[in-house]
Amino acid sequence: MLSNFKNHIGKHVAISDEQFEAIVPYFEVLDVKKKAHLQNPGQAHLYNYFVLDGCLRMYTLHEKGQELTCDFALESWWICDQKAYIGKQESNCAIQAVENSRILRISRDQELLLLQEQAFIQSYFLQVYQKAYAAAQFRNKLFKLHSKEEIFIQFNNNFPDFVQRVPQYLIASYLGLTPEYLSEIRKKMFS
Amino acid sequence: MLSNFKNHIGKHVAISDEQFEAIVPYFEVLDVKKKAHLQNPGQAHLYNYFVLDGCLRMYTLHEKGQELTCDFALESWWICDQKAYIGKQESNCAIQAVENSRILRISRDQELLLLQEQAFIQSYFLQVYQKAYAAAQFRNKLFKLHSKEEIFIQFNNNFPDFVQRVPQYLIASYLGLTPEYLSEIRKKMFS
Repeated sequence: MLSNFKNHIGKHVAISDEQFEAIVPYFEVLDVKKKAHLQNPGQAHLYNYFVLDGCLRMYTLHEKGQELTCDFALESWWICDQKAYIGKQESNCAIQAVENSRILRISRDQELLLLQEQAFIQSYFLQVYQKAYAAAQFRNKLFKLHSKEEIFIQFNNNFPDFVQRVPQYLIASYLGLTPEYLSEIRKKMFS
Repeated sequence: MLSNFKNHIGKHVAISDEQFEAIVPYFEVLDVKKKAHLQNPGQAHLYNYFVLDGCLRMYTLHEKGQELTCDFALESWWICDQKAYIGKQESNCAIQAVENSRILRISRDQELLLLQEQAFIQSYFLQVYQKAYAAAQFRNKLFKLHSKEEIFIQFNNNFPDFVQRVPQYLIASYLGLTPEYLSEIRKKMFS
């Protein structure tokens, strides 16, 4: 299963078997059951998570107690509350398994050590963060330019597998819609 | 003025005068007048911009022709349409000077060459992108959790200098409010 991680790195930088073996000890492998929490709101000592298999989501609680999904991560995506993670602060976000998942995690201290001791990996992380920033900036623009209904239609056209795979109430929580309203939009789309 | 750039790099990685001189040729320095455009919608051959002095904004056009401000950059911030920049695609965003500004720009090709030929700078860019991603993720969360009115109040409390410096109609365009409604919120706040 770790081969997924090596392949992902290999898409960004050349990596030999020896180099991969040298970086593995900085990470921990975890198996998590569907709905289990990897991080709870108010937690310090955060980790950055890489999905080997499965799906994670990050959410925060609205003052009315409602869960608002901020991000999803499928295979080969990283997920964390970046501001709290790099600042070593408490996070007000939770990270939960959407499916039974196998993941890698790394603490900020281990990450800094890894970047220092295995400098070749800097280029991999730089490319990962450039893409993550691009995706976050694109999402910001999307939410500014379009209605939630339009965003769901785009979502559905661009990522049909994702929409099939993730429970509808979580997609509703990501778009800030009620599950009932999302269900109405779907009925209209497929009628 | 380039010393602003050297100082910014120096906050992230150790850099000698010789190392700084080696990276300067990858960049161009430009002076732009207030309201001048560095990038127009539909443009390919994009650049990443670093503000030495002044202020830039990035905006996109709503289908109704209205300008929506996506990002601002004050001194020591980078700004570009990241998805189009790294993918070397056309951007649907414009980048405009909010004030008379002095900026550095680098093309994607030059950036890739710089990262390859001056590997010490990778760590600087990695840290810049980690912070940029953190800020974009935080903004996404903010816009999901709070009303535009609440966001403006937070903005005003956290960045009073910024709110004083940037014209109100641009802050309105960033928050997706009409200038008239923002003016009403301000009146309420300061009454």
